[in-house]
Amino acid sequence: MKRIAVFTSGGDAPGMNAAIRAVVRNGVAHGLEVIGIRNGYQGMIEGDFVPLGPRDVANILQRGGTILLTARSKDFMSPEGRAKAAENLKKAQIDGVIAIGGNGTYAGAAKLIEEHHIPVVGAPGTIDNDLYGTDYTIGFDTAVNTALEAIDRIRDTAASHSRVFFIEVMGRHAGFIALEVGIAGGAEVIVIPEIPTDAKTCAEVINKSAEKGKRSSIVVVAEGGYEGGAEQLEKDVRQYSGFEGRVSVLGHIQRGGSPTAKDRVLASRLGAAAVEALISGASGVAVGEVNDEIRLTPFKEAIEQRKEINQKKFELAKVLAL
Amino acid sequence: MKRIAVFTSGGDAPGMNAAIRAVVRNGVAHGLEVIGIRNGYQGMIEGDFVPLGPRDVANILQRGGTILLTARSKDFMSPEGRAKAAENLKKAQIDGVIAIGGNGTYAGAAKLIEEHHIPVVGAPGTIDNDLYGTDYTIGFDTAVNTALEAIDRIRDTAASHSRVFFIEVMGRHAGFIALEVGIAGGAEVIVIPEIPTDAKTCAEVINKSAEKGKRSSIVVVAEGGYEGGAEQLEKDVRQYSGFEGRVSVLGHIQRGGSPTAKDRVLASRLGAAAVEALISGASGVAVGEVNDEIRLTPFKEAIEQRKEINQKKFELAKVLAL
Amino acid sequence: MKRIAVFTSGGDAPGMNAAIRAVVRNGVAHGLEVIGIRNGYQGMIEGDFVPLGPRDVANILQRGGTILLTARSKDFMSPEGRAKAAENLKKAQIDGVIAIGGNGTYAGAAKLIEEHHIPVVGAPGTIDNDLYGTDYTIGFDTAVNTALEAIDRIRDTAASHSRVFFIEVMGRHAGFIALEVGIAGGAEVIVIPEIPTDAKTCAEVINKSAEKGKRSSIVVVAEGGYEGGAEQLEKDVRQYSGFEGRVSVLGHIQRGGSPTAKDRVLASRLGAAAVEALISGASGVAVGEVNDEIRLTPFKEAIEQRKEINQKKFELAKVLAL
Amino acid sequence: MKRIAVFTSGGDAPGMNAAIRAVVRNGVAHGLEVIGIRNGYQGMIEGDFVPLGPRDVANILQRGGTILLTARSKDFMSPEGRAKAAENLKKAQIDGVIAIGGNGTYAGAAKLIEEHHIPVVGAPGTIDNDLYGTDYTIGFDTAVNTALEAIDRIRDTAASHSRVFFIEVMGRHAGFIALEVGIAGGAEVIVIPEIPTDAKTCAEVINKSAEKGKRSSIVVVAEGGYEGGAEQLEKDVRQYSGFEGRVSVLGHIQRGGSPTAKDRVLASRLGAAAVEALISGASGVAVGEVNDEIRLTPFKEAIEQRKEINQKKFELAKVLAL
Repeated sequence: MKRIAVFTSGGDAPGMNAAIRAVVRNGVAHGLEVIGIRNGYQGMIEGDFVPLGPRDVANILQRGGTILLTARSKDFMSPEGRAKAAENLKKAQIDGVIAIGGNGTYAGAAKLIEEHHIPVVGAPGTIDNDLYGTDYTIGFDTAVNTALEAIDRIRDTAASHSRVFFIEVMGRHAGFIALEVGIAGGAEVIVIPEIPTDAKTCAEVINKSAEKGKRSSIVVVAEGGYEGGAEQLEKDVRQYSGFEGRVSVLGHIQRGGSPTAKDRVLASRLGAAAVEALISGASGVAVGEVNDEIRLTPFKEAIEQRKEINQKKFELAKVLAL
Repeated sequence: MKRIAVFTSGGDAPGMNAAIRAVVRNGVAHGLEVIGIRNGYQGMIEGDFVPLGPRDVANILQRGGTILLTARSKDFMSPEGRAKAAENLKKAQIDGVIAIGGNGTYAGAAKLIEEHHIPVVGAPGTIDNDLYGTDYTIGFDTAVNTALEAIDRIRDTAASHSRVFFIEVMGRHAGFIALEVGIAGGAEVIVIPEIPTDAKTCAEVINKSAEKGKRSSIVVVAEGGYEGGAEQLEKDVRQYSGFEGRVSVLGHIQRGGSPTAKDRVLASRLGAAAVEALISGASGVAVGEVNDEIRLTPFKEAIEQRKEINQKKFELAKVLAL
Repeated sequence: MKRIAVFTSGGDAPGMNAAIRAVVRNGVAHGLEVIGIRNGYQGMIEGDFVPLGPRDVANILQRGGTILLTARSKDFMSPEGRAKAAENLKKAQIDGVIAIGGNGTYAGAAKLIEEHHIPVVGAPGTIDNDLYGTDYTIGFDTAVNTALEAIDRIRDTAASHSRVFFIEVMGRHAGFIALEVGIAGGAEVIVIPEIPTDAKTCAEVINKSAEKGKRSSIVVVAEGGYEGGAEQLEKDVRQYSGFEGRVSVLGHIQRGGSPTAKDRVLASRLGAAAVEALISGASGVAVGEVNDEIRLTPFKEAIEQRKEINQKKFELAKVLAL
Repeated sequence: MKRIAVFTSGGDAPGMNAAIRAVVRNGVAHGLEVIGIRNGYQGMIEGDFVPLGPRDVANILQRGGTILLTARSKDFMSPEGRAKAAENLKKAQIDGVIAIGGNGTYAGAAKLIEEHHIPVVGAPGTIDNDLYGTDYTIGFDTAVNTALEAIDRIRDTAASHSRVFFIEVMGRHAGFIALEVGIAGGAEVIVIPEIPTDAKTCAEVINKSAEKGKRSSIVVVAEGGYEGGAEQLEKDVRQYSGFEGRVSVLGHIQRGGSPTAKDRVLASRLGAAAVEALISGASGVAVGEVNDEIRLTPFKEAIEQRKEINQKKFELAKVLAL
């Protein structure tokens, strides 16, 4: 193995740059050349390659986003697109690839291996934390802290006005962000896809909170936790509670920002580990960190298995909202 | 003058607590007793009064929101409500009142003076900066920095994905926040109530930006800058530009958070100045800071005159987006 | 068990308030009364007790420091002092105690159990992360992120001036903060008590960094990593390197601030778990989180066993500084 | 005027990059070519020039430090050095120069004009705010907010332990940062070069604070406010007060970090204004913002006149510490 490539794909996540830096520096430390592919799979198809040395990744550790850019590629969905991508990789004499992204990224990589026998190792870069095979994904801790900061601000206003706030955080299929932010933000109710909550129950909790003397309540809703999101939940709750809530959809701010220490360290470890996995001959696997140890998980498993939320934490949240 | 009262009213703004602290401490320094009225005009009507000494306002300087709470009061709209409020103030032997809030707060105070001859001095507490008679209102600088931080985060994502973002900031009638944030955030387009922009022009600027090699563009829209807000503007721009933008409505996060240094200092100065104005016999005026000097402005003028945005800054923003 | 007490002791750590809140709310949820002891062991001796209900711990989740205050108590070092403390606890009909703090706190609790048979469960509250029996201590993640933010700022200056910075972070006996911050901050050299580094080696790394084209270098030093700290290391390195470095001792800022999401969640879990341990009859143990599971560790073990740093991370740091 | 140059000199300040961006974009908007000089006057002597177009200054608005780097140049102190610098500027056909920095930068520019008749306009880039001819310097607002954040953190610890903290902030000759931070941070005592305070008075205020029931006190000391700084003041105060204080020297963290909104807007305005001043034929003057208007001040005046601190603010600080 002489030359490897690295790219980011799917939604950007804070820490992707730290992972790129670790891939490049650990690659070079192992005597490899490293090529960056810009714009994810689309750049692979278009041959948008750029050599990366240790100095090229200087001063990016603390930056949000991804210097290699990212894009969703329709072309890569077709066998022809993938063939073109593989051709470019081979022309550039790339012996192995590191793919930083989420489920879709892994699925694409699996196809590339299957059809074109190019070794690929994945690294989990997504704020949603919904990837099996790693305790945390790169970007999750930062997204949680960003959402938390927003909730802390909203609480000032909620408390000053005696209001109920419905705050929507990211998580279409998984409630990891909502659960963590809900506990850390002292939410009265947490609504996540894994554990359905109806508007009536939600209204009851809020009304009970008011009876207990709380001047304001906060409901944290994962995007996919309620049909129609926080906006709809507020409307439905109003029917049972008699009061009007305020809605705040945090949205895109959760993706950006300088990564937290935890995300930088995780990304650094996983980026470095991906290089070592490739060198050792691994392919079709994603690196992850489980109980502070590096673990490799086959793409198939990483994609198909569902990472479970911690039920005890969900129960704890209720007690803490006493 | 032996006893004064202080309250906050209207939307909460970071720095209101710093102003309350300054009123209490400067009041006591001048030998006065200070009473806090909770929940704004509503608390005045309900007699929700609490004595405030120097220690009661300890450790609030850095807190968002308002310890005295705030509420919109329908009862105060009626002469009966105001009579009840005045009666409570007189019963509590309050010789003068300091009202921290915006336009509506000043208007209410003017009625109280007119109908019941109770001395009131106002202090400008609102994030919108739309009050005549002061260069800046308490809370504006914090709101601008909060919005800016959000934009910095969104820019990470925008740049990584080559996207156009439409970001809505507060400001129903005034573009102060949008203008300041737009310049500081490097926006390609700034849309404010004072200077109408149509979707076509907006689309042209964005398209030109792309031609100039910019990978992403940011449009900052004041709530009242475009009929239907950022959401509608994005839809309308799409017709002319051919691309799909992303929308982010910053909303309530802009109200909260620990106040910036500037807001704490401004609030401290104005709170202290309001006490001195009351003592010196002033009433029906709002304190403000103009060119670093304290200035008193009659409520009528503060309400009726429109504070103008700085046209040169608006022009500068265009040049900077080159 | 009808009534329990909770206190904080030793250096304050962000998240202590979140732990107190969890103790109170989970205690009440289990039908217990909860008493707060102010000023740590000193308050135990002086009988400085205050009942805590669910509303008393509202709005403290996000606050740094500890509402129960903390102090180092000389009186508690003597058998007489401890006897007085035990007497107060018994007089107040306290059936069990939760002690939030570090090594010294655990040692004091062990004495109290031994001499007076009062059940005590500990919870690890210290920024240093140097407690055996838990992956992380309450406050560590926040301290690391605070130090990291400082380093990010210093890097701006270091890069603009082509300077070498020696940054001292907390950690008299353990290098956890330095190691984490060093990796996350992209340090060229990390100096910790566990792995001695001499000035000559340090100078060589810095000089090599300059040869590789780095305009600036950052050396992160744990308080106890070098005799005389960062100040002395800079002086000694100067002898070998020929250039003058700048020194920054981060100091007390690392203790304060609003806790991160991770610290709030950890503190909430451990506070709640401590209540359950007490109820289940445990005493003389500390709660901890190991591999995402709650674990109880005897005080003796928690005090005597040394938590090891992760050698692989230390090696990784060198590769990343390439 | 066809081609202008821009450089940064002296200590770096947040917002310098925003100023560079404004110079480049407004220069190009006026049909000029813009050249960046790296490493300040030293780079001028060494001919370290780089052409800057609008895209070269993209994405720097939010960055601390200076992309053009800065250095103190001994060579420029000599007539020979300056002659070499002038020769380089002429060879590069540079018709005018914009110098961003402080007093020393202006003094150097004045020499260049006097000896070599090269037009230079200055812009005030220094965190100290000690430049005559502008209400605020670029970087001051950010430095104040950074120091304030540190003080807010320290207050958590101070309050939890009942401690007195002596916090040293930047300002060797001027107390602007200390005064602003002191008011915003709720300091009990503010010690600045402009208004001497002795240790005895300081001790008295702290003791009185304790008598009034304050659990902790904060003393903010400008670097040049007391012989020996905060370290020495603490020692001297100890003699009169009987208690031991803690010392925190904030140091270099105050220089870095992403600039605040205010600093970005100020830097953008002043950078743009400097271009217009040069074009209009001005030289030997610094741009500034006074009462929200752009003003030009001759270097001689900017250097020799002392900007006064606001005595009323200093008095206010005492009242607020009640």
